[in-house]
Amino acid sequence: MCELLGMSANVPTDIVFSFTGLMQRGGGTGPHRDGWGIAFYEGRGVRLFQDPLASVDSEVARLVQRFPIKSETVIGHIRQANVGKVGLSNTHPFIRELGGRYWTFAHNGQLADFQPKPGFYRPVGETDSEAAFCDLLNRVRRAFPEPVPVEVLLPVLISACDEYRKKGVFNALISDGDWLFTFCSSKLAYITRRAPFGPARLKDADLTVDFHAETTPDDVVTVIATEPLTDNENWTLQQSGEWVLWWGGEVLAKGRV
Amino acid sequence: MCELLGMSANVPTDIVFSFTGLMQRGGGTGPHRDGWGIAFYEGRGVRLFQDPLASVDSEVARLVQRFPIKSETVIGHIRQANVGKVGLSNTHPFIRELGGRYWTFAHNGQLADFQPKPGFYRPVGETDSEAAFCDLLNRVRRAFPEPVPVEVLLPVLISACDEYRKKGVFNALISDGDWLFTFCSSKLAYITRRAPFGPARLKDADLTVDFHAETTPDDVVTVIATEPLTDNENWTLQQSGEWVLWWGGEVLAKGRV
Repeated sequence: MCELLGMSANVPTDIVFSFTGLMQRGGGTGPHRDGWGIAFYEGRGVRLFQDPLASVDSEVARLVQRFPIKSETVIGHIRQANVGKVGLSNTHPFIRELGGRYWTFAHNGQLADFQPKPGFYRPVGETDSEAAFCDLLNRVRRAFPEPVPVEVLLPVLISACDEYRKKGVFNALISDGDWLFTFCSSKLAYITRRAPFGPARLKDADLTVDFHAETTPDDVVTVIATEPLTDNENWTLQQSGEWVLWWGGEVLAKGRV
Repeated sequence: MCELLGMSANVPTDIVFSFTGLMQRGGGTGPHRDGWGIAFYEGRGVRLFQDPLASVDSEVARLVQRFPIKSETVIGHIRQANVGKVGLSNTHPFIRELGGRYWTFAHNGQLADFQPKPGFYRPVGETDSEAAFCDLLNRVRRAFPEPVPVEVLLPVLISACDEYRKKGVFNALISDGDWLFTFCSSKLAYITRRAPFGPARLKDADLTVDFHAETTPDDVVTVIATEPLTDNENWTLQQSGEWVLWWGGEVLAKGRV
């Protein structure tokens, strides 16, 4: 199994606090030693930092922890390999361009006997995760040859994720930089922080942040993770089949299949 | 104008020495303050480091200089903006997946009145460079719906580059991680280092490396740059219309249009 980390915010926000907690699980407090990656959107551009090394040993992870990149949308992942060897081409998140936007994707789980129809988008590595991402993009592209608003393509995302879930475990984060779509198959939790902000204490490292000192009263920041990252806040645990479409830290749409 | 940096080698080689020279031109000895980027292939995977900041001021550039990433194929770029604002989505190199491989691309020059036919690949940012890259990929995809060896698709690369050159200035580096294709429209130089290796002295920084101490006798490493990066070696200056297909540091094919 792997661990996911997502963020959707209405102002550029740094995710150093949550990332620090997640990175501890990459070979420190957790067994996820087979690489990690994190994608930060900056406008329509995206910065992707990845390493096939365990995050606790990774020089690139230390850079990301030191360097407070501010972003409105983030997707991160630490990996415990099941399908596909340890290596950069099998490291999440995966990126593809669709309709002039960079889409990013990270997955926790595994899919049994997953042989999607070949299409325009093709996996570079060997993971079932990247194969599912390419298949999902091929479905979107077949349904909508020209870009459409996310509300219009949402049913394609939901039905694809529901189908993948039936082949195993499929917790996933998908984004084009503006919206963030989350799908829970077995395990996913979130917290939305807004005024009045208080302190938050990491479960996996001796670190507390007082968000009151770091934010303005209008900030809305949602963090999504496989398991709650803090032990003094009320995270919402999602049920199997629950999906949420986030935008600017807020729920734009949600449902359950 | 921008500056290009490419490397093709027969063993994983670190490019810290050449990168250090190039980075000095990003706001230090040169005027290229509008961002920089470098893509390192690791197997079929690729690491992309980018920053819209001047390279001399960039925290990410310092990481890349400290952290000797070894790669057989590298494409780097520093930018002095002409078309498109300064920002991550306009920062080279650009990446797309084609046929299950990541293709990367960097360009020096500008194209006048360039309005390529829309296709499957679409630019995310506003540069003429990314528009040309997408157009080139669309041509390859139209000509070869299934992946083919580079020798087969080479004529498509050459004719596309020749066409772009007629619209302005088009010095470019393109790679899928195995091969590296270089096209000279106005300015491009290269050096192939092989045994017996000697010392090399950077023009742009007070730094000399003795490659003899860093290499084995079988290593072949070609470095391609807009202008020679060292002042004590014989670089080959390319002529307008010259193209080279590199593989493992060696010329696989070359010609002039």
